Amino acid sequence: MAKEKKLVEAITSMDEDFAQWYTDVVKKAELMDYSSVKGCMIFKPNGYAIWENIQRLLDARFKEVGVENVYLPLFIPESLLQKEKDHVEGFAPEVAWVTHGGMEELQERLCVRPTSETLFCDLYSNIIQSYRDLPKVYNQWCSVVRWEKTTRPFLRSSEFLWQEGHTAHATAEEAEARTIQMLNLYADFCEQVLAIPMVKGKKTDKEKFAGAESTYTIEALMHDGKALQSGTSHNFGDGFAKAFGIQYTDKNNQLQYVHQTSWGMSTRLIGAIIMVHGDDSGLVLPPMIAPVQVMIIPIQQNKEGVLDAANGIFDELKAADIRVKVDDGDKSPGWKFAEAEMRGIPLRVEIGPKDMEKHQCVLVRRDTREKTVVDLDDVADKAKELMAQMQKDMLERARKHLEGHISDAHNYEEFRDAVENKPGFIRAMWCGDEACELKIKEDTTATSRCMPFEQEKISDVCVCCGKPAKKLVYWGKAY
Amino acid sequence: MAKEKKLVEAITSMDEDFAQWYTDVVKKAELMDYSSVKGCMIFKPNGYAIWENIQRLLDARFKEVGVENVYLPLFIPESLLQKEKDHVEGFAPEVAWVTHGGMEELQERLCVRPTSETLFCDLYSNIIQSYRDLPKVYNQWCSVVRWEKTTRPFLRSSEFLWQEGHTAHATAEEAEARTIQMLNLYADFCEQVLAIPMVKGKKTDKEKFAGAESTYTIEALMHDGKALQSGTSHNFGDGFAKAFGIQYTDKNNQLQYVHQTSWGMSTRLIGAIIMVHGDDSGLVLPPMIAPVQVMIIPIQQNKEGVLDAANGIFDELKAADIRVKVDDGDKSPGWKFAEAEMRGIPLRVEIGPKDMEKHQCVLVRRDTREKTVVDLDDVADKAKELMAQMQKDMLERARKHLEGHISDAHNYEEFRDAVENKPGFIRAMWCGDEACELKIKEDTTATSRCMPFEQEKISDVCVCCGKPAKKLVYWGKAY
Repeated sequence: MAKEKKLVEAITSMDEDFAQWYTDVVKKAELMDYSSVKGCMIFKPNGYAIWENIQRLLDARFKEVGVENVYLPLFIPESLLQKEKDHVEGFAPEVAWVTHGGMEELQERLCVRPTSETLFCDLYSNIIQSYRDLPKVYNQWCSVVRWEKTTRPFLRSSEFLWQEGHTAHATAEEAEARTIQMLNLYADFCEQVLAIPMVKGKKTDKEKFAGAESTYTIEALMHDGKALQSGTSHNFGDGFAKAFGIQYTDKNNQLQYVHQTSWGMSTRLIGAIIMVHGDDSGLVLPPMIAPVQVMIIPIQQNKEGVLDAANGIFDELKAADIRVKVDDGDKSPGWKFAEAEMRGIPLRVEIGPKDMEKHQCVLVRRDTREKTVVDLDDVADKAKELMAQMQKDMLERARKHLEGHISDAHNYEEFRDAVENKPGFIRAMWCGDEACELKIKEDTTATSRCMPFEQEKISDVCVCCGKPAKKLVYWGKAY
Repeated sequence: MAKEKKLVEAITSMDEDFAQWYTDVVKKAELMDYSSVKGCMIFKPNGYAIWENIQRLLDARFKEVGVENVYLPLFIPESLLQKEKDHVEGFAPEVAWVTHGGMEELQERLCVRPTSETLFCDLYSNIIQSYRDLPKVYNQWCSVVRWEKTTRPFLRSSEFLWQEGHTAHATAEEAEARTIQMLNLYADFCEQVLAIPMVKGKKTDKEKFAGAESTYTIEALMHDGKALQSGTSHNFGDGFAKAFGIQYTDKNNQLQYVHQTSWGMSTRLIGAIIMVHGDDSGLVLPPMIAPVQVMIIPIQQNKEGVLDAANGIFDELKAADIRVKVDDGDKSPGWKFAEAEMRGIPLRVEIGPKDMEKHQCVLVRRDTREKTVVDLDDVADKAKELMAQMQKDMLERARKHLEGHISDAHNYEEFRDAVENKPGFIRAMWCGDEACELKIKEDTTATSRCMPFEQEKISDVCVCCGKPAKKLVYWGKAY
């Protein structure tokens, strides 16, 4: 292994410096590059292809639950952004402003959308008249801009890609049901497709979205024990509807305000995939979203028939709808192995003269490096089987890691000790007072991640102030 | 028909006022809506879903010819935009400028990308070192902004959606070959998928892209005889490479400049689909890109078993991978027929108690309104067959319309007469002098659309100035 690693330039070990390991993997796996534009990243083919697979699979799930895609403008007039008070306060400090169009100064500044609640509200106020027009369940895939001072590939950048769903409903109950439905859809997607288990719950008022009545979140745990907010679903009640005058006539001919939700996931998920599954050889991609699922690497490819055999396997796998490539470049097999590992390709196939004699090839799993010798007639079936198993095993490993990194704190001493010495989520009781959240953050840098749906009482008092406890909260350091 | 039309609000007839007909169809088929942002449109579900189908099918063709997708920043620093002289002159007058990020004024203005040549060049100058790094064949799907004074749904708006391919090659020959390859791919896609035949050729210097060595175009003919530029493919030579310093070391260890191309198609194509195929009842969508291919409309749906029968057909068609819906709303069948026609749904299925007795249903083609009575056991096969036939017939009709609207002009009198009285393309010889293009535009509003690949000599002299002719040109009024 040592020799192979050198061939593709060694990356920093995870345990030595996790942040540097992350940056190295992003760079060496050619997922992303910095651009000349401050705070903006370039999604290179390997990185963008992961996003395309996420989009395709998530969008299919959206369509199953009645979501319709639309596209709204990139720009929001300043007056529109200002209609909902909490919302503008939350976003105005971090938006990019367009002041000139062509050679002329604009009469009104336009901000580049940081999120599109205001545009959807404006649209809904025009197209919703009657209960017959409800519900509206729209979504858009787009980029948004939030002017960030410090940036980090996939996790935080001035521009990122995401989807934002925005819905309007006749009743509060229906809006709440949609909020929870989409949160569950997100959690299920992350588990089943990205092999990342999630902690689900509600955000505290301090952490909720600007303008929301309540925000629900899914939180993942990275390899280093830090939390990553991976998706959010907001119930707006009728707050935006009142600000934007979105009313409908109900069956009794009465004017009513609609109830709204919004929900989003972004290219952050790629950061989560890297930090949950990666190892010291680089990326490890769940087979379901790997742009290349199988890399065929011929051994002694100049010997007669080897490349033909490799191409034969390629045809076989391609026909079975597997995303496959042959690496017939002029590098050594060892170099190619290391590169395929760096890129996180789930399976590699080795085929050389000796294998050919025995009418076989070798399949190697990226996650366990387990080798399986396979008859050439069975290669497609076996590849599918191994990838299905790998997908399951990756989720299981991530789940064990998550479960092994949750600790309970019954008092502030235990809490501080956990933050210091037990990377992961800390479960602790909270009185409901924002002052305690602020003190905990000040003292430990940990923040409240969520109030889990399954509440229990592990102590009677708030872990911080000792007053009566109201909620069990997951706390943690977060990206 | 008269009664049905009233039910969905009549649209203006095409022959009476084509521009108004177009706007009516866009609005009534719910493809698009105006937004509060000047010059920016809202893609509603029916319109966006057409774009999604175009994207999916065009992207699959891209991938077959080695295109890799990436995503580059939305913003271009002013200094980067200025690096290529012709390019900045072409685009600077129509870009939106970001001057503030958050609360601070930016040190350097950023423009919102009107096109991304400069960003791709910047990237290529960083990642291309050796001949081994070539070719690069990148593409991105994104929105771009060009500050337009007058706007028209799908045809011209301040923001639109498109794809832009940008490639870098070792040799001039390879770049030219890629330019032509992508133009042919576009033309083939428009014919086979959108059922729109194209005239292919090269733009005159006056009409070429800012910074290009040569621009190739595909031009479609709308129902009213006006041309619509539907896709372009540019060969940049090494002009951008020299401006941005994009060099590679060749096999002989010599530094060389790369040769580049770019090519794009946009949501304009939706405008072309409307104006080529539409009729006085609304939109007519080619089956391959119709979001809903079959609408099932139950007759006397309150009678026992009718809805079950409709749902049975739905299951049948769904299982055959047909995009299908049942319209079980509370409107009359006549209203539903008219609405399905307005939306351009290729086939409708009528099923009522009398059909059920005979174990049959009725399929109605949107384009010809031809009715076919089908046994319920054959409905999926027959629907596929009819849609395949419709797809072919639509292309054939469009081709006949195109061929019937090309006239030759041998002198200026014939030319002016043709512009006045023969809507469509005019073939006429040209001396190669820009002054003649300007005069023709001034006199007639017609512009040179392209110099077709198949050149012939229909006269010895320029149609405008009478000097020796150099090129056969297609002229026309254009959108």
